[in-house]
Amino acid sequence: MKKAVLIPDSFKGTLSSTDICGIMKECIRSRFPDCDVSAVPVADGGEGSVDAFLTALGGEKVWLEVNNPYFEPMKAFYGLIDNGKTAVVEMASCAGLPLVEGRRNPSKTTTFGVGELILDAAKRGVSKIIVGLGGSSTNDAGCGAAAAAGVQFLDAEGKAFVPTGGTLCDIAKIDLSGKNELLNRVEIVTMCDIDNPMYGESGAAYIFGPQKGADPEMVRELDAGLRHLGELIRRDLGRDLTEVPGGGAAGAMGVGMMAFFHSVLQMGIETVLDTVSFDEMITDADVIFTGEGKIDSQSLRGKVVIGVARRAKKQKKDVIAVVGGADLGLEPAYEEGVKAIFTINRLPQDLSVSKFQSRENLAFVMDNILRMM
Amino acid sequence: MKKAVLIPDSFKGTLSSTDICGIMKECIRSRFPDCDVSAVPVADGGEGSVDAFLTALGGEKVWLEVNNPYFEPMKAFYGLIDNGKTAVVEMASCAGLPLVEGRRNPSKTTTFGVGELILDAAKRGVSKIIVGLGGSSTNDAGCGAAAAAGVQFLDAEGKAFVPTGGTLCDIAKIDLSGKNELLNRVEIVTMCDIDNPMYGESGAAYIFGPQKGADPEMVRELDAGLRHLGELIRRDLGRDLTEVPGGGAAGAMGVGMMAFFHSVLQMGIETVLDTVSFDEMITDADVIFTGEGKIDSQSLRGKVVIGVARRAKKQKKDVIAVVGGADLGLEPAYEEGVKAIFTINRLPQDLSVSKFQSRENLAFVMDNILRMM
Repeated sequence: MKKAVLIPDSFKGTLSSTDICGIMKECIRSRFPDCDVSAVPVADGGEGSVDAFLTALGGEKVWLEVNNPYFEPMKAFYGLIDNGKTAVVEMASCAGLPLVEGRRNPSKTTTFGVGELILDAAKRGVSKIIVGLGGSSTNDAGCGAAAAAGVQFLDAEGKAFVPTGGTLCDIAKIDLSGKNELLNRVEIVTMCDIDNPMYGESGAAYIFGPQKGADPEMVRELDAGLRHLGELIRRDLGRDLTEVPGGGAAGAMGVGMMAFFHSVLQMGIETVLDTVSFDEMITDADVIFTGEGKIDSQSLRGKVVIGVARRAKKQKKDVIAVVGGADLGLEPAYEEGVKAIFTINRLPQDLSVSKFQSRENLAFVMDNILRMM
Repeated sequence: MKKAVLIPDSFKGTLSSTDICGIMKECIRSRFPDCDVSAVPVADGGEGSVDAFLTALGGEKVWLEVNNPYFEPMKAFYGLIDNGKTAVVEMASCAGLPLVEGRRNPSKTTTFGVGELILDAAKRGVSKIIVGLGGSSTNDAGCGAAAAAGVQFLDAEGKAFVPTGGTLCDIAKIDLSGKNELLNRVEIVTMCDIDNPMYGESGAAYIFGPQKGADPEMVRELDAGLRHLGELIRRDLGRDLTEVPGGGAAGAMGVGMMAFFHSVLQMGIETVLDTVSFDEMITDADVIFTGEGKIDSQSLRGKVVIGVARRAKKQKKDVIAVVGGADLGLEPAYEEGVKAIFTINRLPQDLSVSKFQSRENLAFVMDNILRMM
């Protein structure tokens, strides 16, 4: 084996994508010392996404002072890759849930800082900005971020304000004219791995509000605010984004990225594959190792393993998936290009027990797969 | 793939060796329809051993009336293989623990019926008798079987009797002169997979007595009886068998087979490999699948996977082990000839949960191994 490419998703709750890459690499190196190993930790848009891109591609981390979810100053960061031509922003860095521990309240929190990060990157002259959604404490539909970029939200009296989840209903008019024009010269791509629409029973407030601290009453208010904003976006910006899958991601930040930043929403794995030039990377690879916490029928909807397999299949490359668990009925996965699937469960143990041996268990199955090769 | 050989041990408590062969075979046939598959269900000497040999090699089952563990009449059987030249006796068929459910008492139970089976096979003119130990309800050191074959056990008054576990102490003299001379013309091989000696802390009574119904007091008596018999065998038969590994198997039937039947004790897998002409069977095989419930450092001591691997290694054949669980530190197993080891745990589940999906889980990993080939 001369070249292997590693591109696993994280095993949620046990191993990060970076951890998995490290373990896989060690196994390969010990059995094929001369093998060239390219490791791509997979960013899912959430916490750790910037580091994942930097690990895969190199680059630098830019730190700056921005607003945290409660409009307080904090140091946050974004990444610069591709010789400074692309910036990677993860919204969790300044709008994440861990930042409001003890005071979760999605009616009050803002994505303002995210807009500051995006603007700073644009001012630096990048040609592309990747924005990772996920792990947010907010439900402001990205209005905070938009306000930071110069978008004006006016109340009934024509006064500009920065809306949060609880005050979306107070918006009477949206005015894009003040938006920093630098942003119109940058391609913005938003990574988003969920399907939820802006509002309604499967929308941002109902599905993700409770984990951000909303009680049932607040959930209803947040949902009403999003519904109101959706109507205004249709009226003032001429776009109906209310039913776009993924619009509800990260407190409806998905909709905000589309409406205020003219961004496209993309499955995270597609962004990663494009950004690391995956198609080029695998041309001379003998095998590609991927994986995820659990492979099931959900996995067939554009998650990491299938995303990787589809690309690899075009070049007839072998894709081996190493997973924490597998449902039955995965024939479609093989048809999409997965050659074989192996689980890491070395012993018949419940996850509550086996999770403490994930490293050893992953190394065990990797080693045995390699022995087969 | 043109030819595969299947030779898995059972996964204790979940799948029999025959089940595993069936599932493996189905997986191979569905992916390689033209592949020649030779399946050898592995007999371990215990219940099911006769059927395993008959499944692997064909032959017939001979039924006859013999004594059960309580000297009551019952129908039991042995197998005839190799065109009637070899008989296979499993002691469990007439001395097994399930036969005394509700009245377990290793001080009273006998292996007399086992001797009747052996004698009947000898009278039929076989040249070899394989005797499988395991699953016994007895602790008579094979004295019952020996008595059935004509060996005389005399008490202090010179009166012959059939000793059981509780009356071994009453034996004053052993007289082999009455043993049926047919038995001297037959090669007798005893399958035995454990190491325990005749008596003492790791002997038959202390280790296996309790599961046969002995309380601590009875265990001490049984152990004393075995100790006494060991001394008599040394005195009357001129052989010290008290420390032979495996002598303690099946209520010290291991010692009895050596002392009264001039049998050798052999690891079960070696008997199986010899009997099915394994070396010949694999000459044109592309791969050999084996497996066991759990592979660990114990497995390195002549159990199925290692036994198979050692033979296959001599012909440089690939051996793939599919197991229910695997300990770490199996480097020696690979050195013995195992190419790779895969576990069947498709999901991180405790055995109490996953055992109900053993068939699907085994089929899943087999299918993926085959996809790699």
